[in-house]
Amino acid sequence: MRLESNLGTTVIEQDVKHTPRNNWHQWLIGRPLQTADAPHQTIGKTVGLAVFASDALSSTAYATQEIMMILAIAGSGTLGYVFPISIVIVLLMAIVTISYQQTIHAYPGGGGAYIVARDNLGELPAQTAGAALLTDYILTVAVSISAGIAQITSAFPNLYPFRVEIAVAMVFMIMLVNLRGVKESGIAFAIPTYFFVISMVLTVGVGFFRFLTGSLGTVVNPPAFSVEGAVGMVTPFLLLHAFASGTAALTGIEAISNGITAFKEPRSKNAGITLVWMSGILGTLFLGISFLSGKIASVPSEAETIISQLARTVYGGEGFLYLALIAGTAVILIMAANTAFADFPRLGALHAGDGFLPRQLTFRGSRLVYSRGIVALAVIASLLIVAFQASVTRLIPLYAIGVFLSFTLSQAGMARRWWKSGHLKPDEQIVEPGSIVKYDKNWKVKLIINGLGMVSTFIVMIVFAVTKFMDGAWIIIVLVPILVTIFFTIHHHYKSLAKNLSLDNYNTPMRVSHNRVVLLIAGVHRGTLVALAYARSLSADVTAVHVSIDPLESQKVVDKWNAYGEGTRLVVLDSPYRLFIEPLMAFIEALLKNRQPTEVLTIVVPQFVTPHWWENLLHNQTALMLRFALLFKQGLVILEVPYNV
Amino acid sequence: MRLESNLGTTVIEQDVKHTPRNNWHQWLIGRPLQTADAPHQTIGKTVGLAVFASDALSSTAYATQEIMMILAIAGSGTLGYVFPISIVIVLLMAIVTISYQQTIHAYPGGGGAYIVARDNLGELPAQTAGAALLTDYILTVAVSISAGIAQITSAFPNLYPFRVEIAVAMVFMIMLVNLRGVKESGIAFAIPTYFFVISMVLTVGVGFFRFLTGSLGTVVNPPAFSVEGAVGMVTPFLLLHAFASGTAALTGIEAISNGITAFKEPRSKNAGITLVWMSGILGTLFLGISFLSGKIASVPSEAETIISQLARTVYGGEGFLYLALIAGTAVILIMAANTAFADFPRLGALHAGDGFLPRQLTFRGSRLVYSRGIVALAVIASLLIVAFQASVTRLIPLYAIGVFLSFTLSQAGMARRWWKSGHLKPDEQIVEPGSIVKYDKNWKVKLIINGLGMVSTFIVMIVFAVTKFMDGAWIIIVLVPILVTIFFTIHHHYKSLAKNLSLDNYNTPMRVSHNRVVLLIAGVHRGTLVALAYARSLSADVTAVHVSIDPLESQKVVDKWNAYGEGTRLVVLDSPYRLFIEPLMAFIEALLKNRQPTEVLTIVVPQFVTPHWWENLLHNQTALMLRFALLFKQGLVILEVPYNV
Repeated sequence: MRLESNLGTTVIEQDVKHTPRNNWHQWLIGRPLQTADAPHQTIGKTVGLAVFASDALSSTAYATQEIMMILAIAGSGTLGYVFPISIVIVLLMAIVTISYQQTIHAYPGGGGAYIVARDNLGELPAQTAGAALLTDYILTVAVSISAGIAQITSAFPNLYPFRVEIAVAMVFMIMLVNLRGVKESGIAFAIPTYFFVISMVLTVGVGFFRFLTGSLGTVVNPPAFSVEGAVGMVTPFLLLHAFASGTAALTGIEAISNGITAFKEPRSKNAGITLVWMSGILGTLFLGISFLSGKIASVPSEAETIISQLARTVYGGEGFLYLALIAGTAVILIMAANTAFADFPRLGALHAGDGFLPRQLTFRGSRLVYSRGIVALAVIASLLIVAFQASVTRLIPLYAIGVFLSFTLSQAGMARRWWKSGHLKPDEQIVEPGSIVKYDKNWKVKLIINGLGMVSTFIVMIVFAVTKFMDGAWIIIVLVPILVTIFFTIHHHYKSLAKNLSLDNYNTPMRVSHNRVVLLIAGVHRGTLVALAYARSLSADVTAVHVSIDPLESQKVVDKWNAYGEGTRLVVLDSPYRLFIEPLMAFIEALLKNRQPTEVLTIVVPQFVTPHWWENLLHNQTALMLRFALLFKQGLVILEVPYNV
Repeated sequence: MRLESNLGTTVIEQDVKHTPRNNWHQWLIGRPLQTADAPHQTIGKTVGLAVFASDALSSTAYATQEIMMILAIAGSGTLGYVFPISIVIVLLMAIVTISYQQTIHAYPGGGGAYIVARDNLGELPAQTAGAALLTDYILTVAVSISAGIAQITSAFPNLYPFRVEIAVAMVFMIMLVNLRGVKESGIAFAIPTYFFVISMVLTVGVGFFRFLTGSLGTVVNPPAFSVEGAVGMVTPFLLLHAFASGTAALTGIEAISNGITAFKEPRSKNAGITLVWMSGILGTLFLGISFLSGKIASVPSEAETIISQLARTVYGGEGFLYLALIAGTAVILIMAANTAFADFPRLGALHAGDGFLPRQLTFRGSRLVYSRGIVALAVIASLLIVAFQASVTRLIPLYAIGVFLSFTLSQAGMARRWWKSGHLKPDEQIVEPGSIVKYDKNWKVKLIINGLGMVSTFIVMIVFAVTKFMDGAWIIIVLVPILVTIFFTIHHHYKSLAKNLSLDNYNTPMRVSHNRVVLLIAGVHRGTLVALAYARSLSADVTAVHVSIDPLESQKVVDKWNAYGEGTRLVVLDSPYRLFIEPLMAFIEALLKNRQPTEVLTIVVPQFVTPHWWENLLHNQTALMLRFALLFKQGLVILEVPYNV
């Protein structure tokens, strides 16, 4: 590092490289990485799919079942609508994927809803999108972990009483993996993700083969319907409600667009290809599951999942392949939480960098990850899991609404961007913080694609909010505006702070014309005299102050001061009510009132330092109490002069 | 207050009298009292009896029953021994009373076991006696409150689940009364104490009248024996065990000797007369209850107390007088805790004054009572009540052993004192901290009386320790030595501190030859420049230090420093691992290593002060972390220069 300097200031550069000590912290999350190591921590497409796709892919484990659960309200005869609804959802998925494909190429530095909305729509939509996404990431962790644990406790019912503890332990395990850094966590998560994909592809493939050869059959001993109405009436509202439930399949699809910078160069291309892979796998599996589940006459039930019914029908029993799929499903659900751990801290750092969240979130920890965001996510998600007792049923209505809100804002931003792009001259460009807008001759097509995405995701959001309002969606509808308000309050603080601290219009240099020093003395001993020596080195104007609670003791202090005080003036404050802080405060406040603008008052407190911490309990913590009482008044400095006993 | 001063030092006296504000604190415990008000806070004999006797008198509620409980182990035929054993206990009570009568007159300034042992036997016995008494006071609170609550919950069984909460609430209520001061608490407690005494005297009186007129009869529908053996063998061990249980009647008899200073002048005479009243009432009631309980053939039982059986037999039913006695008994048990609240803080202050407990315990609060001791007692007793779930059965074996240990040490000290007194010439005297020893012509008689007291209480202690060891007495046998060790550790701290701070052999005055000032800067803004101005007022040797985590940001800092730093040298510490505290610590430690003995290092930290507390969460608490990391190193002063935003 080389720093430039002019002659007015001496710049001394130290070359000490402080390697942090090898301690438990390092043992837990790995050796520290230098800032210069940052660019190496990127990932390829294969690992990228594992890191970012688990959230999206894991939704195949429950999306079909959610559609059936709603349809079953009107009776089992309505289940034939599952496949058509699934096709609509996959269509929506395709629209969203193409929209995000455009985003990824337009924003190679990371094109999450937050950035796109910020650059194209303004601060309020951006903060709204960010609040929605941050909320959703927390829910992703809580829901996915809870769902994964539910799978495990279905297999091992005696673990059920410990589900909350296990879930929280899982959250903190994933937190540790992420504190180590994204590359290593990618490797750690690749194996289970691919294990799930292969198991699921195999199940669906074998299922189709058996369907085509006519040997598939139906579910043996199906569970009872959890909900079964007898109305038999299919209303448009019911279909929309079922459709809304199924759109849970789309959660997580935006993950890659937020995390483009984690990819190897060429980032946009790699990220875009990974997105296509992911959507392809997701759509295929979802459609396959929805199709086959109808053919085998499976039953939506809390007792046995659709995946389980499908697998044992396809494999003709509960053998090795059945167990592999169930295990893979449980694991992918837990892994899905990892997606949120990859994105939440990045988005938090973006907010913080723009001054809408505490600046500390921009700090990268010893492993170059946003450790504070990772820890914050783990803590909040754990609280949520504890509060909702790891119940997926109670968490799920809060989920997905945030995602669709951010989808809508993101697409709106992109549409706005193409509009701007279409109105530029071929050689013009607009430089925005997140990307550069140039003229694009296909702007109309792209505008239509993103506009379509915006309209469809907006409709889905409204449908979701209306149909699930009472079940819990209201919490998010209330929470997002509150978060946005908090974000703007924080932003206001940083802006007014910067204004107050700014050196613009800074004319006369600040100076201290006079330093009035007050030395507090409880007794006269070596510690007092060290403090006196220090006080006298600061200023010629030193006043010793003694609060008198016991007249006899005070007379001793005065006598000793006469002998050792080197002529320093002494003020004795009489305290008939045996108070200490109050008379002192009144004295100090009187001095502050008469203070000149360039005068400073310095309070010097002698402090003896004991060799053991517990010995401090044997003394009045005067300095501490005083510090608390005076808490940083303008023109007042408090300091302790230590004396080692 | 007038203070003397010579010409070398100016003494300025301030006359501001700081009356504390009228707040919730004052509303709760009353208006503050000036130190000069202290002598008025004394009490007469009638109130003194109420304040100090409730502990002793309340033991009549269970002492007889405890004797019967043990005898019943060998069968109900042994219950005839209750009255003879009671006579022995009253004899012991008389010995102890006469012994303490001597103590009260020898120690008009308060003659608790601690002072008597300290003046006559030395530090170790004194600390042992003190530890035993402090422990016992805590147990008095826990046992008495629990027993009182047990009476209440016997009458109202639906309160039983809340017994711990009620007990703790009671403790804090008594704490509040005591924080108001002993005189007012005396008035508050006089009515219930005298109510109990009158109820009990009436019950015993009517009982005797009916016994003499032959109309007493026996208990109607007696409860079942809680313990009933069929051995029928009366061994000496059994009798001793029963006797030991009955000696619980003596607990609390020492209270007056500790609290002599609370009495109106002439203190010793008033206290002595009160002690005789107390012992007389206690002995009479105890003997009466023991005698009558045998005559009415009462049965020791957990289901119904002896007092209850006696009262309904005497009054021929559960009418108004019966209920009055039961209520009075419950209340006196709760009041008994008050005795401990009167004595524990006084004894704690004595220990603290001698440097064996934290000095803070000598501090008198706004109402001139040792408020910290009162609060400490309430807190520890509450913890005990919670830990033992307010169970008297589990608490009682811990109780009384401490009292007898302190009795023994106190009597031993008094015996030693008479021995010394007998060997003085008539005009000689020894001045001790607690009293003045003069020649006493009756020293032999007095020596025999206290010697007898010593031997008998020692035997009782041994009997108690042996027979109740497994039931819980072992806890106290382990705890007392631990406490004594802690007391001496504290004493060692104060002694070595005083030695280190002492100005004996203090020759060369301390001085600061050079003040090296280090100014920490994160950025260059108005707050930094205020701190720079302050730093430059302290010393000509100022170094600004900046820890560089981001090279781009650091270059900005350097550039701004060149413009605004007024030529102050700047050291940039490169931190490739993005650490902040560690490179700074290394830099400071290097400076400290090269420090001259009379050189001081001052670290100046700019601190902006935000208008709302929560805004601090939006900033790194660098100053705080640094303060924690450097925690009072010799020759190092850390200070924050505030800048109000």
